[in-house]
Amino acid sequence: MSGMLFEKNREGGPPPPVKVGPVTFGGNKIVVIAGPCTVESRAQLMEIACAVKEAGASILRGGAFKPRTSPTSFQGLQEEGLALLAEARERTGLPIVTEVLDTSQLNEVAAVADMIQIGSRNMCNSVLLRRAGASGKPVFLKRGMGATVNEFLLAAEYVLREGCAALALCERGIRSFEDSTRFTLDLNAVPVIKERSWLPILVDPSHGTGVASLVAPMARAAIACGADGIMVEVHPRPETALCDGNQCETPEHFFEMVRSLKAVAESVGRTL
Amino acid sequence: MSGMLFEKNREGGPPPPVKVGPVTFGGNKIVVIAGPCTVESRAQLMEIACAVKEAGASILRGGAFKPRTSPTSFQGLQEEGLALLAEARERTGLPIVTEVLDTSQLNEVAAVADMIQIGSRNMCNSVLLRRAGASGKPVFLKRGMGATVNEFLLAAEYVLREGCAALALCERGIRSFEDSTRFTLDLNAVPVIKERSWLPILVDPSHGTGVASLVAPMARAAIACGADGIMVEVHPRPETALCDGNQCETPEHFFEMVRSLKAVAESVGRTL
Amino acid sequence: MSGMLFEKNREGGPPPPVKVGPVTFGGNKIVVIAGPCTVESRAQLMEIACAVKEAGASILRGGAFKPRTSPTSFQGLQEEGLALLAEARERTGLPIVTEVLDTSQLNEVAAVADMIQIGSRNMCNSVLLRRAGASGKPVFLKRGMGATVNEFLLAAEYVLREGCAALALCERGIRSFEDSTRFTLDLNAVPVIKERSWLPILVDPSHGTGVASLVAPMARAAIACGADGIMVEVHPRPETALCDGNQCETPEHFFEMVRSLKAVAESVGRTL
Amino acid sequence: MSGMLFEKNREGGPPPPVKVGPVTFGGNKIVVIAGPCTVESRAQLMEIACAVKEAGASILRGGAFKPRTSPTSFQGLQEEGLALLAEARERTGLPIVTEVLDTSQLNEVAAVADMIQIGSRNMCNSVLLRRAGASGKPVFLKRGMGATVNEFLLAAEYVLREGCAALALCERGIRSFEDSTRFTLDLNAVPVIKERSWLPILVDPSHGTGVASLVAPMARAAIACGADGIMVEVHPRPETALCDGNQCETPEHFFEMVRSLKAVAESVGRTL
Repeated sequence: MSGMLFEKNREGGPPPPVKVGPVTFGGNKIVVIAGPCTVESRAQLMEIACAVKEAGASILRGGAFKPRTSPTSFQGLQEEGLALLAEARERTGLPIVTEVLDTSQLNEVAAVADMIQIGSRNMCNSVLLRRAGASGKPVFLKRGMGATVNEFLLAAEYVLREGCAALALCERGIRSFEDSTRFTLDLNAVPVIKERSWLPILVDPSHGTGVASLVAPMARAAIACGADGIMVEVHPRPETALCDGNQCETPEHFFEMVRSLKAVAESVGRTL
Repeated sequence: MSGMLFEKNREGGPPPPVKVGPVTFGGNKIVVIAGPCTVESRAQLMEIACAVKEAGASILRGGAFKPRTSPTSFQGLQEEGLALLAEARERTGLPIVTEVLDTSQLNEVAAVADMIQIGSRNMCNSVLLRRAGASGKPVFLKRGMGATVNEFLLAAEYVLREGCAALALCERGIRSFEDSTRFTLDLNAVPVIKERSWLPILVDPSHGTGVASLVAPMARAAIACGADGIMVEVHPRPETALCDGNQCETPEHFFEMVRSLKAVAESVGRTL
Repeated sequence: MSGMLFEKNREGGPPPPVKVGPVTFGGNKIVVIAGPCTVESRAQLMEIACAVKEAGASILRGGAFKPRTSPTSFQGLQEEGLALLAEARERTGLPIVTEVLDTSQLNEVAAVADMIQIGSRNMCNSVLLRRAGASGKPVFLKRGMGATVNEFLLAAEYVLREGCAALALCERGIRSFEDSTRFTLDLNAVPVIKERSWLPILVDPSHGTGVASLVAPMARAAIACGADGIMVEVHPRPETALCDGNQCETPEHFFEMVRSLKAVAESVGRTL
Repeated sequence: MSGMLFEKNREGGPPPPVKVGPVTFGGNKIVVIAGPCTVESRAQLMEIACAVKEAGASILRGGAFKPRTSPTSFQGLQEEGLALLAEARERTGLPIVTEVLDTSQLNEVAAVADMIQIGSRNMCNSVLLRRAGASGKPVFLKRGMGATVNEFLLAAEYVLREGCAALALCERGIRSFEDSTRFTLDLNAVPVIKERSWLPILVDPSHGTGVASLVAPMARAAIACGADGIMVEVHPRPETALCDGNQCETPEHFFEMVRSLKAVAESVGRTL
């Protein structure tokens, strides 16, 4: 492979920094994206949005359109969820990242989101990758749970070739035989991607492990091996969450975790 | 899980047979789907279509919209490919199955295809599953390369809940550490799905192994463990194929393979 | 790799047939090895040995030294188990294959067994491979659950280089993310090994799937893709088995299965 | 599972600290084990031993008996290797950890080693686990490349039940489909084991990734998520190493890495 836009030493020199509003990805400062797995209600979203902002998050995440394994599971508040995310941005000033599931939703999501997420289940959806890349919006691309790092970078290439100037990647766990975690968070991908590509790479330890008590230690490990940021799920009452409650941090734990991440970031010459 | 439409013993009794034109899936007769990975030209498609028909295939496969790992790979003839598939049906009388990559292509594909394929990379694309299920067309759903059998059946449920009356599943290989095959064709999924579901299950040994010489033995194994059919890639000159040449059978080998499959089918009380 | 003794087209022409007493591995006739996972008592072993002989098995299996995941699980009858196996051979005339766990047991096991099994957990135990290869006894080598086919063949090479004239391989399932089976029986390994090696390759669908109802269909598939035999666990009362009860066939089911295997064997030009 | 000796909150209170000579495992201070993959010669071993001591290693590793995938690969200097390790201890004062492959080598290895390593390929060799546990020597147990964390802890239980008072575990990479690293170093296992067990857990990023440039970032990540130490391969001229050269660090890189690890250790409240 050569001549790819994702490559570290591509012709024409390094690309400009990846920016989402005031936030820079891939710079010295670690990016913290946090919020609920799913937008459930105005009260839930506002409570979490304020809490994560106060704890130090710089971008708010929240799912409006949810990719669920079963059609009988809650599929998200959809349009109403997008409206609530816009309101939360108004309230907190945090930029919003939210997932798009299909090209038919792209305009609607792009009208609200500051950064469009393409989730693990759509990482090899080439049509969606292209349309998102052509949307003019920053894109947040998660690794497919069954995809190699090489395939992940080629998915990024689909986005970049459409002119996207702001793309960030996210490792979120792969399938393996190990059953004490929901997925196997593959932190090795972080330095591998750093060697091969100029693209910022973040880590989602919430989905990557599926276990709340593992989120903080794996977030620290992510930063120690060079990740440019983390994405974490926060919920004030995880036991009542409509989705993925057992991998959510409470705001209190999130607050403590961010403090510990600052120390690790400094130990590797970065800030948070 | 219970109350699912895919279940074997669901309320309301067994569903009607899955039919695509004159072809019945899941009956006593094994279904053979064959054709090129990708439609490359009129000459290529017609040569293969006639050859596979003569050898005993009952449905023609061929990709017009191709899901490729890299944006620099050939992405298919697209609309032109669909037109050629329609012409091949005219010529041979064989029904056509071809892949749809995105909801935006659905009407176009449904206007030509007798059966709409949702490929491995889109198995957990819930929006596409729903729209395909609501299209009124038979659906051919391949297992995601990183998906469990349970997730595969829940993807089928998305299709069935939209009213689809004709759905067939296809095992096509999963990701594992083994590197002598491109994927690990998981034939265990065949009897597992037969136990849990009334849905027909076929096997694609071409993608499942990625090695031409393994296609025939694994097709025989598929039928021996209860598969309702096979999907095979055939190309007269595999070394020049624009996609996946090293897993294609030549028409001559395909012809021989079908003959051997007949014997195996009879040994398990079926016909071909 | 070249110059390996396992290779199909090695210098010096094909090796002599692999024989264990009157049984030939890798010939036209399919080899059926059956018996209990673990020797539990004289009564249990004799009942099963007679049943499997009557059903058509040509070798009796049974564990005396058991490799268990937990030290609190039953570890086998050990020396007493070996004595009972010798008695069962006396009674039925069937040759015995049983597992050796360590070089310190080798003489003791070799004194009784007609064929020494090296199990999945010891496949990369190079010292044991060598000593077994030098023992003068036929060796039955199972694939490591985390081993590639290439590593499996190199393990065989350790045995062959010590002068072993009678070695047979056995696919028994690999680790993957799929959770509806205990392991993922990798039948693709059968034709891959047939292409690369002259060594007989058998299949163990009992351990490979861990589910009794899947044993018969996967045994049929194994023979259809070219396996030289099967190894199956049989227990008259699986629910009371001291080990692996949920993957055992009853003698009645085993009898029916063997009948169905005969038809499949004939369909691919072999006998059973 | 309960009543296991590996459990964190077992009856009878916490066990005494795991000590190997002057080195404590699982305490506040991070343990650094370093040395060559294989002892190749006196000159090679002394050069590396002195270098790693100077850089801050507290235990010297080095293989005398090597578990190799192929019988044609270098199998280690064996007895001569043990003698050189004893000499290196004399010279540097560092305790020695080296691998035993089989019970027949146990006395010989135990006579020289300060800590006996059971490698990944022998993790489920229950006979060896027991004998090592009964040897009176500290044991260093590496995770099987195809073993779950639960199986790893049960292997530890085999050692503990024989009375071993000093056991440390080591994560060293598992099999997965990802192919940019040799194995997938599973750092998630570190906090999982910390939650379930009182046993010290170290990490081997050299074998875990198989890529020299990934060793330092993954070692930092290991410490950040709570590992009690690291095991690293060091070779002055990796390109000439007889084994695993492409995953060795040079002494210079090792020196730099240790310095960076100190900062990470302090950021999580530990020393090195």
